[in-house]
Amino acid sequence: MKLAEIITIGDELLIGQVVDTNSAFLATELNKLGIQVVQITSISDSCSHIMKALDDAINRAQLVICTGGLGPTADDITKPALADYFGCKLVSNETVLGHIRTLLAARGVIINERNIRQAELPESCEVLHNSAGTAQGMWFQKNDCDIISLPGVPYEMKAIFYEELEMRFRERYNLPPILHHTVLTHGLPESKIADMINDWETNLPPEIRLAYLPSPGILRLRLTGRASGSIEELKTRLNQETENLIKLIHPYVFGSNDDRLEQVVGELLIGKNQTLSLAESCTGGTISAMITSKSGSSRYFKGSIVAYSNEIKTAELNVSPYTLMMNGAVSQAVVEQMADGIRRKFQTDYAVSVSGIAGPDGATDDKPVGTTWIAVASERRIIARVHNFGDERSRNIQKAAITALFMLREEIIDCL
Amino acid sequence: MKLAEIITIGDELLIGQVVDTNSAFLATELNKLGIQVVQITSISDSCSHIMKALDDAINRAQLVICTGGLGPTADDITKPALADYFGCKLVSNETVLGHIRTLLAARGVIINERNIRQAELPESCEVLHNSAGTAQGMWFQKNDCDIISLPGVPYEMKAIFYEELEMRFRERYNLPPILHHTVLTHGLPESKIADMINDWETNLPPEIRLAYLPSPGILRLRLTGRASGSIEELKTRLNQETENLIKLIHPYVFGSNDDRLEQVVGELLIGKNQTLSLAESCTGGTISAMITSKSGSSRYFKGSIVAYSNEIKTAELNVSPYTLMMNGAVSQAVVEQMADGIRRKFQTDYAVSVSGIAGPDGATDDKPVGTTWIAVASERRIIARVHNFGDERSRNIQKAAITALFMLREEIIDCL
Repeated sequence: MKLAEIITIGDELLIGQVVDTNSAFLATELNKLGIQVVQITSISDSCSHIMKALDDAINRAQLVICTGGLGPTADDITKPALADYFGCKLVSNETVLGHIRTLLAARGVIINERNIRQAELPESCEVLHNSAGTAQGMWFQKNDCDIISLPGVPYEMKAIFYEELEMRFRERYNLPPILHHTVLTHGLPESKIADMINDWETNLPPEIRLAYLPSPGILRLRLTGRASGSIEELKTRLNQETENLIKLIHPYVFGSNDDRLEQVVGELLIGKNQTLSLAESCTGGTISAMITSKSGSSRYFKGSIVAYSNEIKTAELNVSPYTLMMNGAVSQAVVEQMADGIRRKFQTDYAVSVSGIAGPDGATDDKPVGTTWIAVASERRIIARVHNFGDERSRNIQKAAITALFMLREEIIDCL
Repeated sequence: MKLAEIITIGDELLIGQVVDTNSAFLATELNKLGIQVVQITSISDSCSHIMKALDDAINRAQLVICTGGLGPTADDITKPALADYFGCKLVSNETVLGHIRTLLAARGVIINERNIRQAELPESCEVLHNSAGTAQGMWFQKNDCDIISLPGVPYEMKAIFYEELEMRFRERYNLPPILHHTVLTHGLPESKIADMINDWETNLPPEIRLAYLPSPGILRLRLTGRASGSIEELKTRLNQETENLIKLIHPYVFGSNDDRLEQVVGELLIGKNQTLSLAESCTGGTISAMITSKSGSSRYFKGSIVAYSNEIKTAELNVSPYTLMMNGAVSQAVVEQMADGIRRKFQTDYAVSVSGIAGPDGATDDKPVGTTWIAVASERRIIARVHNFGDERSRNIQKAAITALFMLREEIIDCL
C-alpha cells in the first residue's frame, strides 16, 4: 500500500481564516487512485516548520504533497524552504518564464519583478506545468520518498493535479485498489440505524470497514474495502455487502456515493418529464441555488420567486392580505397559498414553498426562532408541515432547504 | 505564548469525504484568545494513530484539542483510545446518563444500549458538558499539557467550546494578545497590490506581519501583530499601520476584517433607506441566498425572480420575445430588460440581473462557457457589462454573484 501525507502550508489556515479544502480534494483523488492518506498536516509559513514537517512526513509516507506558499509575495516562502531542504539553489527556468509572460499578456497584466522571480525554481526539481497560473508545481525525491509542492490556489492546484500528476502516479506506482461505496439515508438518527444493522455490521469481513457520516438531515454510511486478493473479488464482495445493508434499511435510503439530494430529485422529475417551481421566503434563494447548481436543471426547473417581503407574497404569489394579517407570514395557510400561487403562475407540475423564522430576530411568543412551514403542491393536493430547526440562522436555512427537497421527493414518489 | 495543536480524528477526513471545518473554527477562536495554533493534524480512527499524534502534539504544544470519534457507533474509538493513553478505565457517569436520557426524551427517541454507553467516560477526565448532544467533552492533563477531546459534529463541538472552554481558558491561562486586522480589496491582482505597497511592507516593524489571502474576486490583506509590550501599544501600532496601508490602495478597499460583501452592500442600502430586487438566470438564486444570509436583510431586500426558463423571463420580467430570439438569453439587451423588468415590478430603487452560460453545456460559437452579462438598474440608468469567468460551473456562478454585487456597490456609491 502506497502511503501519502498531505502538508498544507499557510498562516491563514492556522488562524482559521481559510478552511482547508485542498486537503479534502487531494485526499479524495489519492484515494481513488489507491493511495492511502495517513495524515494531513497544516503548518505556518515558516521555514523551520516546513523543514520539520517534511522530516516527519517522510518517516510516515512514501509520497508527500505540499500545497501553498508559492505566490509572488513576500509571505510566500515555500520555494526557498524547499531549495534549502534539498540543498540546491534557485535557478531561472526559461520555459517557465515564457509561460508566465504569455499568461500575463493574455490577462492584460504587465509583467513585473515578482512575476519574473516566479520562474526561479529549485535546481533539483522536476517542474510540473501550471496551465492555470504563474506558480509552478515541483517534484523532488529524497530517501525513496516523492515530495511534491503545489500552489495553494485551489483551481491551480487542481489543474496541476489532473494535468501533471494523476497519470504520473498511475505510471510510476503499482497501486493496489481501495474501493468505497456510500449509502445515503434520511429519516432516522445514527443510533437507530446502528441498531437496525448491528448484526450485519458485526459480521462484516475484515477487509471491509463501515463508517457513519452524519450531516444535517442526512446520514451517510460508507463501506471501505481494501483488497487482499483481486480487485474484481473485492468489488463483488463490496457490492454484496452494500446490497445486504440496503435490504435492512431500504425505506430510508435515497441515493448512493456522491449523489446529491438536488440531483436525486432532478432525476425523478426528468424520469416523469415534469417541472418544478419554488416560492422561497426564509430560505431566500438557497433551494433555487441548490437546484441550479446541477447542470441540466433547466430541463425541469422553470424558476422561482424569492418573496422576502409580504408585499411580494401578496402581489406575486396571490397570498391573501387577510390570511397574512390573521396568521402571520410563518403559517400553514400562507405557505400553502405560496405553493399554490407559484405553481399556477409558473405553470409547473410541482411547487415547493418555505416560510420560517431563520433568526436571530423575528420570533414571537408562539413562534420561536427556527419555526418553519414548508408546503409541496402538486396537481392533486397541497401538503404542508411545520418544523423547528433550532437557533442558528445558517443552519435553519440549510435544514429548511434539505427538508423541503425531501418533502418534494416524497411527494413525487407518492404520485408515481 | 501559549501554543496549541488541533487534532481532528476521522477516516472521512483522510479520504476527503468531509472538509475539516472544525479546525478553522477552533483556530479562529483560539487566536482571538491569544493562543497560537502551531499545527493542525488530521488522522484516522485508529488507536495507534491517536496515541502517536498525541505524543507528537504534546512535544509541540501546551494545549491539544482533539475533535471526532465520540459518537455512539462502532467506528468511534477516540474514548477507549484516550482511556488507554491516560491509563485509566471507562466508568459510567450518572449525571451524564441523566442528561442523555433527558435529551433523547425531548427528541422523542427511546434510549438504547449505545446511548447508555455514551455516559461511560475515562475516569481521569474532567467532563465538559455538551448541551447540544449526547457525546460529552473531556479535559485531561499530562506533563503540564492540557488535552481536550470534543465531538466532531460541528454544532456540538461549538456548544462545548463556547459554554465550557472559552471561560476556562481565560481563567487558567495568562494570555498575551495577538491582534489581527484584515483589509478587503477588489479590483487589482495580488502582484499589483504588492508593488503598490512594497515600501510600506518592507518597513513594517518586526512584531507586525502581512499576509496576502486571494479568493475569487477578492484579495484580503491581513496584518498580524504579536505583542511584546502592552496590548494598547500593539493596538495603536496595528491601527496606524492599517491606516498607512489603506492610504496606499484606497480606491480598491471595500471593507475590513470579517465584513462580507453582501453586508457591505446591505449597509449602503440601509444608509440610503433604499431597496433592492434581483432577476437571476444563471446564478439561479445564489445572489439572493447571499443577500438573505444576512439577518436584517428584509430592511432593503424585497425579493427576486429566478427566471431560469425564457418563458419566465418573458412572462414575469417583461423581456421581449423578439429580443430573446434575435440576441439570445445571454445578451446585453436581455439582461438590461431583466433588470428594468424586476425593478419596475418589485418597485425597488435598485435591481441587479444576471444571464450567462455557467456550463458545461450551452456554449455557442460566439458565446463560450463562462460568458456572463450583468446589469444594474437604478432610477437614473441601466448599466450592463459582459464578463468571461472561465470553464467551471460552480466557479462561474460564484464569480458572477460576486461581480454583480461589486457592480451594485459601485452604482450605489456613484449615486451618492
